[in-house]
Amino acid sequence: MKKWKYGLSALGLAIGMATSGISATVSAAGPTLSEADFDKATTLYFQRCAGCHGVLRKGATGKNLEPAETLKLGQKRLEQIISYGTEGGMNNFDDIFSKDEISLLSTFIQMEPPVPPEMSLDMMKEHTKQFVALKDYPTKPMHGRNWENFFVVIERDAGTAAIIDGDTKEIVAHIDTGYAVHVIKGTEHHKTDHPKDAVGRFWYTIGRDGKVNKIDLWQTPDKMLVAETKMAYDARDIAVSGDGKYVIAGGYWPPHFVIMDAETLEPLKVVSSRGINVDGEYVNEARVAAIYTTPNEPTFMVAIKELGQMWQVDYTDLENLRIEQIDSAKFLHDGFFDPTGRYFQIAANASNKMVVVDTQERKLEKIIDVAKLPHPGPGANWVDKECGPVGGTTHLGEGAVSVWGNDPMGHPDQAWKLCYEVETDGAGVFIRTHETSQYVWADQLKHPEPEVQQSVQVFDKETREIVKTIRVTEEEGKAALHMEFNQDGSEVWVSVWNRADASNPTGEIVVYDAKTLEEKHRIKGLTTPTGKFNVFNRINHKT
Amino acid sequence: MKKWKYGLSALGLAIGMATSGISATVSAAGPTLSEADFDKATTLYFQRCAGCHGVLRKGATGKNLEPAETLKLGQKRLEQIISYGTEGGMNNFDDIFSKDEISLLSTFIQMEPPVPPEMSLDMMKEHTKQFVALKDYPTKPMHGRNWENFFVVIERDAGTAAIIDGDTKEIVAHIDTGYAVHVIKGTEHHKTDHPKDAVGRFWYTIGRDGKVNKIDLWQTPDKMLVAETKMAYDARDIAVSGDGKYVIAGGYWPPHFVIMDAETLEPLKVVSSRGINVDGEYVNEARVAAIYTTPNEPTFMVAIKELGQMWQVDYTDLENLRIEQIDSAKFLHDGFFDPTGRYFQIAANASNKMVVVDTQERKLEKIIDVAKLPHPGPGANWVDKECGPVGGTTHLGEGAVSVWGNDPMGHPDQAWKLCYEVETDGAGVFIRTHETSQYVWADQLKHPEPEVQQSVQVFDKETREIVKTIRVTEEEGKAALHMEFNQDGSEVWVSVWNRADASNPTGEIVVYDAKTLEEKHRIKGLTTPTGKFNVFNRINHKT
Repeated sequence: MKKWKYGLSALGLAIGMATSGISATVSAAGPTLSEADFDKATTLYFQRCAGCHGVLRKGATGKNLEPAETLKLGQKRLEQIISYGTEGGMNNFDDIFSKDEISLLSTFIQMEPPVPPEMSLDMMKEHTKQFVALKDYPTKPMHGRNWENFFVVIERDAGTAAIIDGDTKEIVAHIDTGYAVHVIKGTEHHKTDHPKDAVGRFWYTIGRDGKVNKIDLWQTPDKMLVAETKMAYDARDIAVSGDGKYVIAGGYWPPHFVIMDAETLEPLKVVSSRGINVDGEYVNEARVAAIYTTPNEPTFMVAIKELGQMWQVDYTDLENLRIEQIDSAKFLHDGFFDPTGRYFQIAANASNKMVVVDTQERKLEKIIDVAKLPHPGPGANWVDKECGPVGGTTHLGEGAVSVWGNDPMGHPDQAWKLCYEVETDGAGVFIRTHETSQYVWADQLKHPEPEVQQSVQVFDKETREIVKTIRVTEEEGKAALHMEFNQDGSEVWVSVWNRADASNPTGEIVVYDAKTLEEKHRIKGLTTPTGKFNVFNRINHKT
Repeated sequence: MKKWKYGLSALGLAIGMATSGISATVSAAGPTLSEADFDKATTLYFQRCAGCHGVLRKGATGKNLEPAETLKLGQKRLEQIISYGTEGGMNNFDDIFSKDEISLLSTFIQMEPPVPPEMSLDMMKEHTKQFVALKDYPTKPMHGRNWENFFVVIERDAGTAAIIDGDTKEIVAHIDTGYAVHVIKGTEHHKTDHPKDAVGRFWYTIGRDGKVNKIDLWQTPDKMLVAETKMAYDARDIAVSGDGKYVIAGGYWPPHFVIMDAETLEPLKVVSSRGINVDGEYVNEARVAAIYTTPNEPTFMVAIKELGQMWQVDYTDLENLRIEQIDSAKFLHDGFFDPTGRYFQIAANASNKMVVVDTQERKLEKIIDVAKLPHPGPGANWVDKECGPVGGTTHLGEGAVSVWGNDPMGHPDQAWKLCYEVETDGAGVFIRTHETSQYVWADQLKHPEPEVQQSVQVFDKETREIVKTIRVTEEEGKAALHMEFNQDGSEVWVSVWNRADASNPTGEIVVYDAKTLEEKHRIKGLTTPTGKFNVFNRINHKT
């Protein structure tokens, strides 16, 4: 690689020399792979590693994996780490990758990372398709089901979303989506008074491959998939504007967000998220993590993970786009609103902090120190006897639920301070509750021991004590994760993830009575069920 | 160079393959240079070519010079173009470069461009120095001169700024600045009522090498240089906030802008200008061209050249930074305000347009079609008998001054429409007038013929006709450029640029009577004098 020099020394201007970090050159020394193996490793890395370590491997939630670091560890140690994980929060992958694949990946990460291409607005437009024309959208539901109690369920490794009738527990449809959909969001507000614009009717999926799909829950199952586009090669989150006009999706690569027409998915506006992080350093791979619609303002909250900045993006005028770039902490990941909808609470996971943004003032409200690697997923808000309204999060890095006050008006002394912590058996990914429930549920997906990974724990809002540990499955190669309440809060649905048999529909959802905590039902025939979105609860923020 | 592939075809996800454009690998085929020659060519290219063509050579005001284009032309044709220029607006360089240098550059631009390094906030802090401590700043002028009629003059190739007494025509000082300073701006508003915060006292220079210097006009000549920092490797413009607290400077490379403490030049905030252009495509080299303080709002106008976006940056809260990204047209370069200070008028030069931003509403007001490659420099506003208040610009691409109405309140029918054009003998870079003058002056620096390049033309605001062509110099290798009025508008100062003898102080400024247009005085002993900034006129926008 050619070194850059201005060579202005003749003018007395000594300038620091450095090589750019952005290049796809293969190191002269070190291990090599055939082109076919390199491509295979690139794919494996993208599917399972890039999320935490980045495609350019600069590190984020996971460590830096550039050759300068990995060559020091060497092939054997890297294989061990990938196989068995680490204390630091790295998963074991020996049940997901073969030995050959682990060897391949260990070599690959000792080589320079390839730089993926950009994606222009015109390229996105070529991917935009209508499966059902707007004029053919029905004006009333075309089935007799209670669609407001539908669950839209991610079937991660199948690249589909299952629509499940919450009343009958029947699987209504498996809808083709992008690969490994991360999040699904629905329209939260009426666009017009016309019944066709009913809240909760349309749902938008974002695949890890950047594919966006629009689902119409009023359609018959064969027609529910109504539109599609693609806005990135690697993506994580999506949201619908408060006025129902726009959908916004965030790219991990290219690092950007895209605002689309919510009716047709036609991409309208692309904004790069590359920028300068809170330490004053340029980040090429500055990825868009969570994206949410602010309930009370005409804006989106866009979390730029590596920058440690929340961007509050005003969608009232796309051609004169107003953005507040709110400095907070690295590495932003997933968040949720307080019950008033004014404050957005988001994990800066590798900083062990929860960041709070005041969406009314469009500025940082507070940063709260919590336990290791917070990850609230959809989050949980409830009322504590001492602290008043509180929010809580699980953690990827330890078995703990951190709980903080989130009512600065009513409880200023407790607001944005740690109220208490609940110790659980294992590090987890998701927390959930419901306004009608006396309990808070936490999963333990990140714990290496099967019996813990397969159990969720339930604690009482009143006593702050764990009241039950529920073994959701005992089958080898399966794990329990992600809880969702049904429409009236009487049931809790927990996913059983068939991680070791990911290509078959051997996963299930186990339904519990929200009061007695007893098992009621098992919904079978699902492939790696992950996130679940109950229409009524998500639209009405019944967390 | 390793090609990027996700290789997800097994999942049915065909993704377009492409190699990234950002790399410093030298092509396998094609011409080569020794490392020493490559470094020398890199320096020459940076100093004379990168401004128009970009360090990554993707093109902007000038054409794309990546190997895919240049290899088609070949060594001989490239040497001819560099030597003699083109009809399209490319300068001749046979009087600036030697034959060997032209040969070297022709080879260099057929090779892959090297990618320069980034510059972090911490690196900038290491360059920040106080030559005079804040506590030692005088509280009144330390000399008896009329400092409000000082001219701060860029001595381009000497890397200095000359301070010239406008009353006596004496050169008061040559102050060390960055290389080839592009712009110098002063404080336009009182920061406090304290005399030490007087408007027009402090001036800030920005070098092409990104060096920022602070000049105190109240000091004795030996102490006028009070502080320094460096915010980029390649930069063009600078501004002082309306409240006098901040200085902002824009980088060509790295493509970013930096907000500094106006007292100490301590860098406080860096914002990347890389982004998505108005065509929806990512631009790595998205350079910051003009930066201005808005007279009526607490904001800066930042022109992102390659994006075709004006960013209106609010400086009231740097940690929750509000930016309006205003879509307009490529390639934004230099601009000026209308007389009310509400509208910013800026050239999108390669689009042959003037862009108008409404800084009160923080949105695009209008785009006006003008002649080829508009370049207003400091710009000119006056009152026309038919169109009312108007603005005007010279053009790099043809001998024409375009004049448009700029009073939407008083003259809505004429506002933001072409009022008339004045044909001049040659393409130019600068236009200038004064509210007390009946004339508008235009230079013709871009014309290849010496007699035109050495002459400026003057037209009458009333008759719209050219009344005089003034041959400012007849010396070989010299050119006439850039006009500036003195404090009371009675004189016009024109630079004589010693382009063929750039390392010696053989340049001069010729002073004309603003009414009779007769020569009054020649100020000698200047090295490549370029832009001149009269303290009173610049601070009070007496254009």
